[in-house]
Amino acid sequence: MNFGFDDTTAELRARLLTFMDECVIPAEHAYEEQAAVSGWSPPPLIEDLKAEARKRGLWNLFLPGAEGAGLTNLQYAPLAEIMGRSPSIAATATNCAAPDTGNMELLAQFGSEWQRKEYLEPLLNGEIRSAFAMTEPDVASSDATNISTSIVRDGDEYVVNGRKWFITGAMNPNCKILIVMGKTDPEAPSHRQQSMILVPRGTPGLTIKRGMKVFGYDDATHGGHAEVVFEDVRVPADHLIGEEGGGFAIAQARLGPGRIHHCMRLIGAAERAVELMCRRALSRTTFGKTIAQQGVVQDWIAESRVRIEQLRLLVLKTAWLMDTVGNRGAHTEIQAIKIATPAAVEWILDKAIQVHGAGGLSQDFPLAGAWAGVRSLRFADGPDEVHKRSLAYRELKKYMD
Amino acid sequence: MNFGFDDTTAELRARLLTFMDECVIPAEHAYEEQAAVSGWSPPPLIEDLKAEARKRGLWNLFLPGAEGAGLTNLQYAPLAEIMGRSPSIAATATNCAAPDTGNMELLAQFGSEWQRKEYLEPLLNGEIRSAFAMTEPDVASSDATNISTSIVRDGDEYVVNGRKWFITGAMNPNCKILIVMGKTDPEAPSHRQQSMILVPRGTPGLTIKRGMKVFGYDDATHGGHAEVVFEDVRVPADHLIGEEGGGFAIAQARLGPGRIHHCMRLIGAAERAVELMCRRALSRTTFGKTIAQQGVVQDWIAESRVRIEQLRLLVLKTAWLMDTVGNRGAHTEIQAIKIATPAAVEWILDKAIQVHGAGGLSQDFPLAGAWAGVRSLRFADGPDEVHKRSLAYRELKKYMD
Amino acid sequence: MNFGFDDTTAELRARLLTFMDECVIPAEHAYEEQAAVSGWSPPPLIEDLKAEARKRGLWNLFLPGAEGAGLTNLQYAPLAEIMGRSPSIAATATNCAAPDTGNMELLAQFGSEWQRKEYLEPLLNGEIRSAFAMTEPDVASSDATNISTSIVRDGDEYVVNGRKWFITGAMNPNCKILIVMGKTDPEAPSHRQQSMILVPRGTPGLTIKRGMKVFGYDDATHGGHAEVVFEDVRVPADHLIGEEGGGFAIAQARLGPGRIHHCMRLIGAAERAVELMCRRALSRTTFGKTIAQQGVVQDWIAESRVRIEQLRLLVLKTAWLMDTVGNRGAHTEIQAIKIATPAAVEWILDKAIQVHGAGGLSQDFPLAGAWAGVRSLRFADGPDEVHKRSLAYRELKKYMD
Amino acid sequence: MNFGFDDTTAELRARLLTFMDECVIPAEHAYEEQAAVSGWSPPPLIEDLKAEARKRGLWNLFLPGAEGAGLTNLQYAPLAEIMGRSPSIAATATNCAAPDTGNMELLAQFGSEWQRKEYLEPLLNGEIRSAFAMTEPDVASSDATNISTSIVRDGDEYVVNGRKWFITGAMNPNCKILIVMGKTDPEAPSHRQQSMILVPRGTPGLTIKRGMKVFGYDDATHGGHAEVVFEDVRVPADHLIGEEGGGFAIAQARLGPGRIHHCMRLIGAAERAVELMCRRALSRTTFGKTIAQQGVVQDWIAESRVRIEQLRLLVLKTAWLMDTVGNRGAHTEIQAIKIATPAAVEWILDKAIQVHGAGGLSQDFPLAGAWAGVRSLRFADGPDEVHKRSLAYRELKKYMD
Repeated sequence: MNFGFDDTTAELRARLLTFMDECVIPAEHAYEEQAAVSGWSPPPLIEDLKAEARKRGLWNLFLPGAEGAGLTNLQYAPLAEIMGRSPSIAATATNCAAPDTGNMELLAQFGSEWQRKEYLEPLLNGEIRSAFAMTEPDVASSDATNISTSIVRDGDEYVVNGRKWFITGAMNPNCKILIVMGKTDPEAPSHRQQSMILVPRGTPGLTIKRGMKVFGYDDATHGGHAEVVFEDVRVPADHLIGEEGGGFAIAQARLGPGRIHHCMRLIGAAERAVELMCRRALSRTTFGKTIAQQGVVQDWIAESRVRIEQLRLLVLKTAWLMDTVGNRGAHTEIQAIKIATPAAVEWILDKAIQVHGAGGLSQDFPLAGAWAGVRSLRFADGPDEVHKRSLAYRELKKYMD
Repeated sequence: MNFGFDDTTAELRARLLTFMDECVIPAEHAYEEQAAVSGWSPPPLIEDLKAEARKRGLWNLFLPGAEGAGLTNLQYAPLAEIMGRSPSIAATATNCAAPDTGNMELLAQFGSEWQRKEYLEPLLNGEIRSAFAMTEPDVASSDATNISTSIVRDGDEYVVNGRKWFITGAMNPNCKILIVMGKTDPEAPSHRQQSMILVPRGTPGLTIKRGMKVFGYDDATHGGHAEVVFEDVRVPADHLIGEEGGGFAIAQARLGPGRIHHCMRLIGAAERAVELMCRRALSRTTFGKTIAQQGVVQDWIAESRVRIEQLRLLVLKTAWLMDTVGNRGAHTEIQAIKIATPAAVEWILDKAIQVHGAGGLSQDFPLAGAWAGVRSLRFADGPDEVHKRSLAYRELKKYMD
Repeated sequence: MNFGFDDTTAELRARLLTFMDECVIPAEHAYEEQAAVSGWSPPPLIEDLKAEARKRGLWNLFLPGAEGAGLTNLQYAPLAEIMGRSPSIAATATNCAAPDTGNMELLAQFGSEWQRKEYLEPLLNGEIRSAFAMTEPDVASSDATNISTSIVRDGDEYVVNGRKWFITGAMNPNCKILIVMGKTDPEAPSHRQQSMILVPRGTPGLTIKRGMKVFGYDDATHGGHAEVVFEDVRVPADHLIGEEGGGFAIAQARLGPGRIHHCMRLIGAAERAVELMCRRALSRTTFGKTIAQQGVVQDWIAESRVRIEQLRLLVLKTAWLMDTVGNRGAHTEIQAIKIATPAAVEWILDKAIQVHGAGGLSQDFPLAGAWAGVRSLRFADGPDEVHKRSLAYRELKKYMD
Repeated sequence: MNFGFDDTTAELRARLLTFMDECVIPAEHAYEEQAAVSGWSPPPLIEDLKAEARKRGLWNLFLPGAEGAGLTNLQYAPLAEIMGRSPSIAATATNCAAPDTGNMELLAQFGSEWQRKEYLEPLLNGEIRSAFAMTEPDVASSDATNISTSIVRDGDEYVVNGRKWFITGAMNPNCKILIVMGKTDPEAPSHRQQSMILVPRGTPGLTIKRGMKVFGYDDATHGGHAEVVFEDVRVPADHLIGEEGGGFAIAQARLGPGRIHHCMRLIGAAERAVELMCRRALSRTTFGKTIAQQGVVQDWIAESRVRIEQLRLLVLKTAWLMDTVGNRGAHTEIQAIKIATPAAVEWILDKAIQVHGAGGLSQDFPLAGAWAGVRSLRFADGPDEVHKRSLAYRELKKYMD
């Protein structure tokens, strides 16, 4: 057992930290200003940062294998944490932003040669963006068997009908391709009914209807969270990813690394919140004491530190398990980090906000926005409660005869 | 001891419930549609509702004495709860919306004849709106001695300089008057330094700078939360409310009833959230069961009910104490409801959101917006932590020799 | 609505407080010393206190009607709170101790003339003690249909077989009678299977086997918590209470007032804990400050006060509902106080212990013992979780068509 | 970074698990029976187990260096967890029980040759037991400068006067030596006032006065928690450990490894609690479902697993830091595990108790006793609140100029 970073990770951490200090953090203010007028597109300065990151060898770090940076999950995880300190900018600048990351992994692993050339390549080059269309407004989508969008074979084409929402990134005009989950065979066994298919933006019948808000945020810099309607949308049969009935298995495979990324970025956000909380507490005085001298605030700071240290180790161990025994062997841990991380980071952000007074709620600090993002992750890939139930069942099974 | 409503309250509750059912709830959808295009002004339909409410004798219910409906705090409190089910519309329609309510109380109690005629009357008639400018961006405003806005006598005028923010309602063009807290004498004993003064919108040097957001919301239907700058703003000396040095005492007097109103409206919001949570839980199915059959969801519903019942009684008792022994005798309870209510209602709204899935975060349900409002109340009149410390000190004092 | 005490209550409160100050609190030390050598019997000094309480008109206060003090639930509740400050002594001294209270109510309401003469009279006179035998070690007894003790008619007798545990009071040699719940007809509809029967101590086949501990406490001053075995125990048929199949209904009727008593006593214990916490915090110094000056401790004190105030009101309203609309109309509230009170008081006691340092865990303060008692109430009449589920079901039912 | 066990650890874990299965768990029942009659001495069967453990090479595993098993903290930690499944027996049988462990480390590191020969040797051989006398009843002992016991040089002797309590192990007649913390120079700088001295049991003036209870438990199998009085207790000057004024530094050095041991044993206890909770939940049925099918119980099980996984990693990392950068470099983590572990394990044990119903509170299951032990650790080496404050201060210091 060894808790130190290996040389590759240490070197990349240093390089990424330098990039953050030199390029990302200094760009935050201008980014917000551009965002105020850039509509559903990302602020233009992001393109320069992408070029710079690529030049510095900080590109596609998330992607294992020859197509990416070739890092293990355990090596990438500490880098994702660093990006989490300024997640809107850093992840996009390094081409490590969701949902493209999961979509690139998926295409690298399951895409046909044609699909990889047409969509994976420009994604790897940061030329286009993509979306992943799973959640539906009309059913509890945490149960994949509820999914009602249909994908029906008709000659050389598939016809897609259905309604999806909270499709992150799809409001961005540069989002060129949607990966859509639907049912090809409602009569098959429950985990063989679903398939995934590529639907290019602009296909007739596809309507990007509106941006869903998360609390009051439209998250336009990430391309928002779209409601999308599919009305007799026809795509050639070669747009199906993998085989018919393979959708559920592909969705499962897509989950693991994404959880690591999300959780590590949240930990980075939590670290930044603790820093902001400390600085603010030291700088404000009430009733003759700095806020930092208030016992309750000290309690929050200590609790935050204690929780972050535990979370980070669990996420790193999960990454190590995925690298050494695979997603299946890391099943409990992958669920555990999904349960533990958003809840803890939400608590930390709440306390950081409280230390900032009313300003903490506003656009003048990154805390309320980060909070809304974390809160929404308590639903990502199904609400926490579904994951807890499944984890408990596995624990109980050890003692069933 | 008796936990039943008196006849006046019972009659008004019935009348108000009818108004909610017949006029308010049916208007919610159109209100949102108008809000999308009405900028910082309230949706126009509110004027019809105001006329209707007034016709039905549901007007200025919050205000004791001859100028208002003449109700006690204990009689008004259950009405505020009912308004809380649709707070944006119902409180405004009945001319019972903050911050006007506190401002009208203040003017009724401390205003000169001239001030009452000029500002209280149109407020009582619902013709204009008002704001209360206390919180400052540069200091921890929960400690009133920190306030740095200056109000300096210069001949027949006062000159106001300073910066305020989170001034609710001040973005609304119909907000005609601001009540501003500042220091007239920084050398006086700490609670005699502050005064309150009326500053009409449009006075030279007064800039309504921008709307502060709360978790992404601009709250434009309430007139937003403005940042306001005072640069050598001159008003005639008769605009001072009460006497020089009386600002702290007036602020204290203003607090009690407002807390009752806020807390009861939050309880109304919580009741609506429980209703939405139950209806949703009954209507969605995952893994072969309705969400209502999930034990964890049942636990949330039960906890919500248990917490609401306790909160309501504490707020009602506080109202009764204010009516019978006055604000000073109800000091502990007034702080207790401020500590307990937002925390509990925030928890209930969070669970209602969770039951709604991602939709609960969005503009399609009133839950996320209500949550942001409740969260911001953990800062109103000072953060919870300040109130807890003060309450604890009073408890400890019982045992000091 | 009115939150003041009526005259009867106010007078009895004053009288009882005097008794506490003059007789109960001063006896606590000697009580503990006698308890150390009195085995399963109560400390002898309790008999003098009983005589004194009776002389002062503080006797059977819990019992409505002519046989008792004739108080309503709402009138008795504040008296139970006062007793809760020193519950072992005060409740017994005034003949208001569980389980006798519930048993007396039960016999007053459902006992035959013979049963009342033989057992209710000496109980009312404080001459004997009694026990209530419901919980069984081998089944989840919160589901009454699980009860496996059998009561079988055989000619003029009933024959009882089964095993019970946590039968409070039964280790006390002066506990002369057990009220036993068992099944007379396992084939009847589920709520008509059970009956209750009187089993005198000393009946052949009845073995009082051992005292169950609660944490490390044997609770000998209350007569412990016995495991009791019934092996072909025969009692005359007239020992059945009410009718065959009436056991479940009698058990339900017994619940309401007992909940009020328990919860109010817990609130009294919580008030005493807050007092001890404050006094201790003021008297100890670490790192140059009293513990009372620590922000975290102030937070605990404030939270304790806020929770107590809410709980008390809910319990009092529940008592009022029982008096005005009966147990059935107060169903939600009766469950709510059972859910809320032990949880909150447990939290308060935990904090009071923490302020006392290691001593708080020990026999030198009443806190750890009180904590264990409260913790055990999270199981009384079924675990909290069962009550929450049932309460949630009632809430959901409002919205089912 | 690597989360696997090294070969030494893996081999010792296997060997210890075998010993647990073959010797410790099967002895639990007899151990409890002997404990009921063995007074303040440990149950006699422990001597056989000690011999067996020694034979199996499972002896003094906690002690680094040649005198012990030579393991690092990181290697020993997983073994302590295994012992924690049956802590009373396993730690004592392997001569790895507190407070001897800390005392042996202390003597190995700071003891003179004479002290090591006289006391360390028989301790290493498991022939005698020892105690560590720090906490005092009259002061808040978490602040070491409060300690009031005096150690005064008088010719060739030191004279000790003072009162200590919660001196674990000192009721055991086989506890032959006490290490006592007191002040040799109240005028010295605050961290140079204290010294440690050896006081043999039986020295005139030393009175082992009584056993303090912890939630009703006397913990007699560990030798209880004594109150000890020192009245002019004289010991030769060579009984001083290290130098005069070195007491604080020695106490600090003693802390680190002990924290690892305690925390890992608690994690072992938590694992056993989860196992018991699952088994019970699967075996009991209410209202037509097993308790394991209740959503709330599943939530507890999942939360328990999630918390345990995080805690364990943090404790292991702390051990690794102690091994690689020393106690000082691990300061934050050593405090973090002390804050996080007892709180989380207490929660888990509470839930396991709740699943067991009333039986969970009693002597029939190991849960309530374990709970009391964990609760008392929230005070060990100072209450959590002191550690949080100190940790927060270190965090804040990063941002102070």
